[in-house]
Amino acid sequence: MAAVSAVENGLARTPQMGWNNWNTFACDVSEPLLLETSRIMIDTGLRDLGYNYVVLDDCWSEKRGADGYLAVDESKFPNGMKSVADSLYDDNFLFGMYSSAGEYTCARYPGSLDHEEQDAESFAPWRVDYLKYDNCYHMGRMGTPLISFNRYNEMAKALKETGRSILYSLCSWEEDFVHTWGGSIANSWRVSGDIYDSFARPDELCGCGDATNPHCIAPGTHCSVLAILNKVAPYIDRGMPGAWNDLDMLEVGLGGMSDEEYKAHFAMWAALRSPMLLGNDLRAMSAKTLSIVNNPAIIAISQDPCGRPVHLRHRETHVWSGPLANGDQVVIFLNAANNDVDMEASLEEIFVSEGVGGTAPQVAQEWNIHDLWAHRMRDKDSKAILDASDARAACKHLQQTQLNDVRLFGAKVGTVLPHGKINVHVGRHAAKVLRPRSSA
Amino acid sequence: MAAVSAVENGLARTPQMGWNNWNTFACDVSEPLLLETSRIMIDTGLRDLGYNYVVLDDCWSEKRGADGYLAVDESKFPNGMKSVADSLYDDNFLFGMYSSAGEYTCARYPGSLDHEEQDAESFAPWRVDYLKYDNCYHMGRMGTPLISFNRYNEMAKALKETGRSILYSLCSWEEDFVHTWGGSIANSWRVSGDIYDSFARPDELCGCGDATNPHCIAPGTHCSVLAILNKVAPYIDRGMPGAWNDLDMLEVGLGGMSDEEYKAHFAMWAALRSPMLLGNDLRAMSAKTLSIVNNPAIIAISQDPCGRPVHLRHRETHVWSGPLANGDQVVIFLNAANNDVDMEASLEEIFVSEGVGGTAPQVAQEWNIHDLWAHRMRDKDSKAILDASDARAACKHLQQTQLNDVRLFGAKVGTVLPHGKINVHVGRHAAKVLRPRSSA
Amino acid sequence: MAAVSAVENGLARTPQMGWNNWNTFACDVSEPLLLETSRIMIDTGLRDLGYNYVVLDDCWSEKRGADGYLAVDESKFPNGMKSVADSLYDDNFLFGMYSSAGEYTCARYPGSLDHEEQDAESFAPWRVDYLKYDNCYHMGRMGTPLISFNRYNEMAKALKETGRSILYSLCSWEEDFVHTWGGSIANSWRVSGDIYDSFARPDELCGCGDATNPHCIAPGTHCSVLAILNKVAPYIDRGMPGAWNDLDMLEVGLGGMSDEEYKAHFAMWAALRSPMLLGNDLRAMSAKTLSIVNNPAIIAISQDPCGRPVHLRHRETHVWSGPLANGDQVVIFLNAANNDVDMEASLEEIFVSEGVGGTAPQVAQEWNIHDLWAHRMRDKDSKAILDASDARAACKHLQQTQLNDVRLFGAKVGTVLPHGKINVHVGRHAAKVLRPRSSA
Amino acid sequence: MAAVSAVENGLARTPQMGWNNWNTFACDVSEPLLLETSRIMIDTGLRDLGYNYVVLDDCWSEKRGADGYLAVDESKFPNGMKSVADSLYDDNFLFGMYSSAGEYTCARYPGSLDHEEQDAESFAPWRVDYLKYDNCYHMGRMGTPLISFNRYNEMAKALKETGRSILYSLCSWEEDFVHTWGGSIANSWRVSGDIYDSFARPDELCGCGDATNPHCIAPGTHCSVLAILNKVAPYIDRGMPGAWNDLDMLEVGLGGMSDEEYKAHFAMWAALRSPMLLGNDLRAMSAKTLSIVNNPAIIAISQDPCGRPVHLRHRETHVWSGPLANGDQVVIFLNAANNDVDMEASLEEIFVSEGVGGTAPQVAQEWNIHDLWAHRMRDKDSKAILDASDARAACKHLQQTQLNDVRLFGAKVGTVLPHGKINVHVGRHAAKVLRPRSSA
Repeated sequence: MAAVSAVENGLARTPQMGWNNWNTFACDVSEPLLLETSRIMIDTGLRDLGYNYVVLDDCWSEKRGADGYLAVDESKFPNGMKSVADSLYDDNFLFGMYSSAGEYTCARYPGSLDHEEQDAESFAPWRVDYLKYDNCYHMGRMGTPLISFNRYNEMAKALKETGRSILYSLCSWEEDFVHTWGGSIANSWRVSGDIYDSFARPDELCGCGDATNPHCIAPGTHCSVLAILNKVAPYIDRGMPGAWNDLDMLEVGLGGMSDEEYKAHFAMWAALRSPMLLGNDLRAMSAKTLSIVNNPAIIAISQDPCGRPVHLRHRETHVWSGPLANGDQVVIFLNAANNDVDMEASLEEIFVSEGVGGTAPQVAQEWNIHDLWAHRMRDKDSKAILDASDARAACKHLQQTQLNDVRLFGAKVGTVLPHGKINVHVGRHAAKVLRPRSSA
Repeated sequence: MAAVSAVENGLARTPQMGWNNWNTFACDVSEPLLLETSRIMIDTGLRDLGYNYVVLDDCWSEKRGADGYLAVDESKFPNGMKSVADSLYDDNFLFGMYSSAGEYTCARYPGSLDHEEQDAESFAPWRVDYLKYDNCYHMGRMGTPLISFNRYNEMAKALKETGRSILYSLCSWEEDFVHTWGGSIANSWRVSGDIYDSFARPDELCGCGDATNPHCIAPGTHCSVLAILNKVAPYIDRGMPGAWNDLDMLEVGLGGMSDEEYKAHFAMWAALRSPMLLGNDLRAMSAKTLSIVNNPAIIAISQDPCGRPVHLRHRETHVWSGPLANGDQVVIFLNAANNDVDMEASLEEIFVSEGVGGTAPQVAQEWNIHDLWAHRMRDKDSKAILDASDARAACKHLQQTQLNDVRLFGAKVGTVLPHGKINVHVGRHAAKVLRPRSSA
Repeated sequence: MAAVSAVENGLARTPQMGWNNWNTFACDVSEPLLLETSRIMIDTGLRDLGYNYVVLDDCWSEKRGADGYLAVDESKFPNGMKSVADSLYDDNFLFGMYSSAGEYTCARYPGSLDHEEQDAESFAPWRVDYLKYDNCYHMGRMGTPLISFNRYNEMAKALKETGRSILYSLCSWEEDFVHTWGGSIANSWRVSGDIYDSFARPDELCGCGDATNPHCIAPGTHCSVLAILNKVAPYIDRGMPGAWNDLDMLEVGLGGMSDEEYKAHFAMWAALRSPMLLGNDLRAMSAKTLSIVNNPAIIAISQDPCGRPVHLRHRETHVWSGPLANGDQVVIFLNAANNDVDMEASLEEIFVSEGVGGTAPQVAQEWNIHDLWAHRMRDKDSKAILDASDARAACKHLQQTQLNDVRLFGAKVGTVLPHGKINVHVGRHAAKVLRPRSSA
Repeated sequence: MAAVSAVENGLARTPQMGWNNWNTFACDVSEPLLLETSRIMIDTGLRDLGYNYVVLDDCWSEKRGADGYLAVDESKFPNGMKSVADSLYDDNFLFGMYSSAGEYTCARYPGSLDHEEQDAESFAPWRVDYLKYDNCYHMGRMGTPLISFNRYNEMAKALKETGRSILYSLCSWEEDFVHTWGGSIANSWRVSGDIYDSFARPDELCGCGDATNPHCIAPGTHCSVLAILNKVAPYIDRGMPGAWNDLDMLEVGLGGMSDEEYKAHFAMWAALRSPMLLGNDLRAMSAKTLSIVNNPAIIAISQDPCGRPVHLRHRETHVWSGPLANGDQVVIFLNAANNDVDMEASLEEIFVSEGVGGTAPQVAQEWNIHDLWAHRMRDKDSKAILDASDARAACKHLQQTQLNDVRLFGAKVGTVLPHGKINVHVGRHAAKVLRPRSSA
């Protein structure tokens, strides 16, 4: 049987990449913001690295008109939505839009609940390619997977009826076990409350911080990177081409984490096959930020055609690994502790057998170990890209990458003999991202 | 888009304030009780400080008549309900009433389940402005948010159909995640079983006392102040103008807590934006009780137009903070321990960034720290108000307050430099309530 | 408003008392067993102490007939059910019957699910006064209170339609929060899986033994006395005249517990206002068993007209207390530990204020402390009753009791001054059952 | 009343035995694989020991045809399904088939959801005797037992309508408490996520590994033997003739566990009355593997006509026991620890009273203790069977067994006096499997 997409719209065969305004700008949206940002995505080479969705989040509408259809806020989008989409199209971007399966959006603009058909009928002629669909103000329509499925399926059907291929991105915070049914109607589904710009800071608003407290019934907001990773670990295997666990938009470059933390955040999102939506202000991006999000070796993990998320091998030590399409493996040692630690994993732990036998055949092989951050762009180079308004430096970076540059594979940093172990020293809140390649 | 109330009745833009008879009088209700109490609320200045709802609780009815309509117990209300409401109106009060979304009320009087329209049709001509709507004897109609939503929405619709603006106050003890949908149909929703007059005493009847015990399935009664605070912490952010988490009626002055505990209870309810319904016997109020509930600096927190509840920054240390409309912050150090403790919080902990950057801009500012209990009325002054039957002393107190008296802001007790910390010594079960104000 | 029964059938104003065959005889039922047992209940005085229901449990039927009605197993009941009921009536007993809200009964006889009307139509002309209604093989009809309520309500309606007053006893093991709705349709509801004859032995089949394990989803069987007490503690206050928490039938005299454990079991069931159904073989009752179950001082607690179950004041120390109709209090110190302990409770802990003020007025009174086991019948006296076939000794016991004998109140064993404490030494798995009486 | 099967199809009066391709071959299925395997089952004597179902798992179909009926993948089954079944029939096997109650099977082939009648109409003429029915891609139709029951009941009804007796095996991973309703419509039901070839290795994908973490909502995959045993312990008593808890297919011989671990795994599955489906590649079976799965003493436990699963007497020490039809008992000491331990159990712990009295009568008897692994076939004998293509050695083994060979009862290894104890030394991850037999 030919492989099919879960939602059968053919989209998101690898996790979607792009930019979304929310994490930085929240409701402060406008046509210039989207178009300026898309210009920078071209100039810095980000578009051509794969970040091709420009997604507008909440706060773009007025109240519904007398005809029941949504009206665009003309102060923010004086030329209407289709004009924005057309501009993006001309630059080879795809255009994303937002609504909520509630009476209101989360920012209390009109929601699409019980207006699904009308709103889909608006989106399609606006050339919308992507819909982020939120969960606020759901009028109590939750409590079993069936109730939530039905609510979100209304929009899935309405989008389908338009005849336009629209990537459908659920944002229901893992309520009602969305990971068990999201893939039947959508291309991705959020797995937690909203991320915030912290690696590990506990916050009472994200599932209470204490997962063993049954009073903690709120999916919450203010979820740290680590809280999200811990939450998604048991069902990360539900992600597959066309249907992905969404760990929420990236915080890289917003300022709340250290460089090592942002590297870890970015690499984990890639390896877990989350959608990769940049959330920073591209107009004020630092050299270090650019050299995280443009690392082709990490992006290659995200976009590996095999589409198999890494699994958590041990919760305590946060060793994650998973296979890649070409037979390589990706292995991440994430140090969640507050001090540097020495970490270790045997090949037997890294290659968990999927089929017969307790020991995977890879355990008996020799592996060259590649460090995927080894060829991170130097600050002066990424600064040059940001400084150059003509995008030539970015172009050069891309040309190298497209030539199947060795940098897709990082740098070889060692070898592991058959039945051997990998030992690494990992800094506080850092992640060592390795790609074992068969030496055969 | 203009801000709208969740329930779209325009009420409770700040948390409702007033008095409810239950905590002191339970079923011992009567017209004289309500009218005498309202008289004291005027004379002590409480009405003009904002306590303007007089809410009658359970036990006011007879059985339904042959026509299916509720009959008022004439022994308790010989002139009928409208007469009570008229008297209250003449004194600029609003009148609150009680029923239950069950076959019975909690005290086993006739409930409104399946009689919603009839009962709303009774309430409106009685000039009812407020309905507390309870959860006892629900005939099994719970178990998913959708089931509970539908049950409570019946009364919402019935109230709306009367054409009268009636504040709708749900009392379903957080069953079926009411915090996720209550605001769509009501102005407030209870978050726990009934409060009782204890700060921290564990009681097996309040969610069992041990929140990690899955056998603890009863929302319960006998919930201490601390149990309620812990329960609401993860979703306190669901409160907003027009729709509030209800932590239950106040116990201040009933006798079961120390003065420091009552101060902490009162301040926390205000800062968390709970409705503020006095529950004590106003005819026997002490000077110390009055000087708690008439503290304009605390009431100003409750009624801040911004309407953003403080958040729990650290569960272990019970540091809560949140922003105010004028740019000030409120910070509470609550000492839940059984001995005095030294507590500390950095500006970085107090000002959690809501948007871009891990560090809020306020962290880099200098702040004057104001103690909101500093200008608590002296005992002799509050005693004078209580003794004076002509309310002149109260009036003077109010006049000062209305002149934007400095006492709205307590007293300055220190300064914190940019990136600095606040250190306080807090007594057992006390709360240090501070209002940092920018020194700029 | 006049007090009404929840289920409005006027029955079980105090918890039902009687005998049920299951714990001893399981499926080994017959007409002679019921009639012989009832004869002993008369001769030993148990009937006249209040044990007036004789309840037949599972296994009495054949398959349904062609007409869809249940057929009685003629090998067990050759004269039919009505004949049994008639005999019991002649001796002033009431007759109880069993079925299940499933396709089968628990022993896999025909169940009443989807046959409720037919079966009620059988029970009424058989003079059935009581229906124990079980939960096995429910065809998946559970999962929300509403689903379970509807299933059990079918039989409630069917019983009502017969026009006969039939005590309705739910046996759904606390599934779907029956304590929140059982009282709307029934006179009692089971709160746990089946009891077994052990005081504290953990068993993996009773809610897994480890209440903090979320995998423990089975209400289970093999529930020890202590497991049941711990489970019902948080909602024991839902019991009230006409509607009781059912802790399952008594194990007293079956042999698996010590005399002290049986005394504790019996006293706790009485004080918690559970139905009191003897489960032992009365034909082989020991003197010590009889003197437990015929203790008028304990039965008086069970049948106190006030009907307010004792509450658990502290889970760790298992101090329970509650008020009685005449102003006395019952206080139980239950020692759940494996060794003797000294226990203590202050009047402030014993008398928890229900209304205003943290301190109940009783704390300021002086109390005479009565030990309700002090006048337990001596072995030789209870043996004499069991030996005497003419019931004269029992009669004498009863006459004394009916004269408001001091033994209803046990014996005074001390006095507590205002604001004082009670100190007791309690043996392993024993319960000290005290009745403080005002010395005023 | 005559005993009836729960699902009333008369099948699986003892747990089904056979072979399923999934654990070894996953999607790599074909007619030759099934027929070669069945040939080996004959030659090695496994068929005649009871392994008589050959079950084809996922991946056998093409897309649905234009008529809506499933089409067999002709590259894998060129002669169609009926031809496979016919061949198996000729060799006295029964034929098992697979589908899923979802839009897809787990491997994303067409599922039977909303096609139940069509697919049952396909299976019956193909001579299908057994249907494993999976749970992937359920379109959100879960969340209460009622929702899941209805979904699985659609296929139950469709199978019944065909008029063919088809063993119905649910694979819904214990979702929605299937153990409470599975037996009403099916012959077995899975109790966990998929097993993997490890005795105790924690894996984040099996219910998260940490059962006390409420975020662990995924039934998961990669469940170790020990994880499954712990999960099923509280409701293992729901298994009975015709309706069994299914602990998933066997991993014996796949290579991930030690010989002692496989022995323990096999014995526990037998004693818990799980279906016994071999999952290894029979074409490459070792002598040690054969001598585990052909141990008649263990198989006799599995197929004991009494059908009462052993119960866990103590979670910490993993002592399991239960009764057998002839009055013997089976007792298993499972050592879940990582080192050898001395274990002990008294007769009182082993024989838990089911009826009257805390002490079972067996406690007062003397017992001969038999070790059921004592007569495990010697390596050279099992190797001889595997080497012999004419099956003569196997035949000899069977003849001995069928003569009620003493090996059905293992070997006597000791005696326990009345009220005595059993003491054993148990190796890491081993299980001592004993069968006490009355010495009377």
